[in-house]
Amino acid sequence: VDKTHEQQALARQQQLTKPPGSLGQLENLAVKIASLQASEIPDLTHVHITVYAADHGVMAEGVSAFPQSVTAAMIRNFANGGAAISVLAQELTAKLDVINVGTVDTLEDIPGVFDKRIDAGTANFCQGPAMTEQQCQQAILVGRDNVLSDIDNTQLYIAGEMGIGNTSTASALASALLKCDPIDVVGPGTGLDKQGIQHKVTVIQHALELHQSELNDGPLSTLTLLGGFEIAAMVGAYLTCAKQGIPVLIDGFISTVAALTAERMQPGCKDWFIYSHQSAEPGHKVVLNALDAKPLLQLDMRLGEGSGAAVAVPLLRQACLLHNGMATFEQANISKGDT
Amino acid sequence: VDKTHEQQALARQQQLTKPPGSLGQLENLAVKIASLQASEIPDLTHVHITVYAADHGVMAEGVSAFPQSVTAAMIRNFANGGAAISVLAQELTAKLDVINVGTVDTLEDIPGVFDKRIDAGTANFCQGPAMTEQQCQQAILVGRDNVLSDIDNTQLYIAGEMGIGNTSTASALASALLKCDPIDVVGPGTGLDKQGIQHKVTVIQHALELHQSELNDGPLSTLTLLGGFEIAAMVGAYLTCAKQGIPVLIDGFISTVAALTAERMQPGCKDWFIYSHQSAEPGHKVVLNALDAKPLLQLDMRLGEGSGAAVAVPLLRQACLLHNGMATFEQANISKGDT
Repeated sequence: VDKTHEQQALARQQQLTKPPGSLGQLENLAVKIASLQASEIPDLTHVHITVYAADHGVMAEGVSAFPQSVTAAMIRNFANGGAAISVLAQELTAKLDVINVGTVDTLEDIPGVFDKRIDAGTANFCQGPAMTEQQCQQAILVGRDNVLSDIDNTQLYIAGEMGIGNTSTASALASALLKCDPIDVVGPGTGLDKQGIQHKVTVIQHALELHQSELNDGPLSTLTLLGGFEIAAMVGAYLTCAKQGIPVLIDGFISTVAALTAERMQPGCKDWFIYSHQSAEPGHKVVLNALDAKPLLQLDMRLGEGSGAAVAVPLLRQACLLHNGMATFEQANISKGDT
Repeated sequence: VDKTHEQQALARQQQLTKPPGSLGQLENLAVKIASLQASEIPDLTHVHITVYAADHGVMAEGVSAFPQSVTAAMIRNFANGGAAISVLAQELTAKLDVINVGTVDTLEDIPGVFDKRIDAGTANFCQGPAMTEQQCQQAILVGRDNVLSDIDNTQLYIAGEMGIGNTSTASALASALLKCDPIDVVGPGTGLDKQGIQHKVTVIQHALELHQSELNDGPLSTLTLLGGFEIAAMVGAYLTCAKQGIPVLIDGFISTVAALTAERMQPGCKDWFIYSHQSAEPGHKVVLNALDAKPLLQLDMRLGEGSGAAVAVPLLRQACLLHNGMATFEQANISKGDT
């Protein structure tokens, strides 16, 4: 992260025709993006959004209000332009990739969908490891390769996810990484009632007990034991963005758990993360706190797909436009007052 | 406000390919805009932003960190495209009007600025009424006429303000309307220190004592005694939008005090208001609460000019686009789950 451009950007913010600090978090955003891009003219014209989709073996435990077939159906919906992230990506003129990292069923060829299916969903982590080590590495590479595929044209990267059951997976992973009780991070997901949430807690507690002896073997091992293919792919994407110097806009609960996993695997990579929103899923706040993250928006969203991050993109763009386009006091011949 | 379209929009939100409620406040926004526009296809392509600028007699009491000449200088900056609201309006392809309602000095002709100067700033409300009744009516008409000037092409109206000293004016007005101690609503404005804030409180307490006997004569009288020309113009604009059925996006502290004044003058007109953000100015929260307002953003902005409202416009547009453009479960052939 570039300190020279950070200082330059801070100095410029003090010269723009407004009371110092009066654009609030938009000033911090402009300075951060200028610093990450090592540019005097931060620019987020080119946004790359990728939705990673996969199924989850823990669905055998009855942890979601939706049937598993919805993962595949939503992949078709992403490609057809009918999903929230499709509508938002089009509006943002962002590049939208959809990657099948492991649905339960094989899918027909779908234009616009990359078939990188690793397996028929993960295994049920209440019975054994969710993935083999090789599968986890394979998923991480799917994310890496996606970032690298358009890296010269990417000014901001967003990873979204779709996978019925994946708030259970993310909650298990967060509980293990944060060494907290699942009750602190489990929520309704797509719409569980109180009883459903209690069951989800019990299922995850059971999984953590099962894998207890291996949960100190490091974050990669934890990801293998309790993760999902789409989450591992997001981890790979985040690690690659940090390594390659691409700012990342983090989405909701699952995306942030992937971000936490990446940070644990490669401390410092979170310098490249900007946090778009705090979702309605109660565990999100806990994971954000663990990353010292201050999200921009609190709109009670809880959809995933990268939708919360996409909704925040205009704020980041406005921050850059104000930074680049406003007049300085000198240009406008305005007194800076007695401050 | 149209209940039929509200019900239709609520029903559509339940059919879109997402868990019900998962778009959070974006769903409420889409339903509200559909209802206010009485349309199945809420649309915010055409946004009309007007910045009202004026000077304030209370500046004689030394209540701001900036000199009064900045009001005029900023009017030139708005017109030249160098101010925050100029940059944002251009990005939003919004119509931007700038109206001089009463700077201390007469200004040269400035292309893009309407000269509706009522007087050389308001009078010092620590000495007497800020305006005459006639001046207050004149200012209200400036706002009304501006709304009407482009009403057939306005889908959303934003009033911004500029006026060195106008957080003092707004604080005085809010204290009188809410019958609260100025200490509860006075803040640093453009950048007062602790001592400056204490002085500002004392000045406003003094003004409230001076006018005490007339502060129960209704909100129009209170506006005349303690208001500003730009604030009265905003009140006129808000009242006219509500009467004509145009949704209004409210900006920060001063804008919200004008909204409160309008609501007190014409109860129910707040049905047409959407609250963009909660600013860093501490009194804003108090005034928002008095309007039962839940603002969309909390970005620590405190600039005025309509800038906070402009920053929120993309959120409203995204809410509409999602509402109009997402596929339904039926269209996408997706199971709604067991909910």
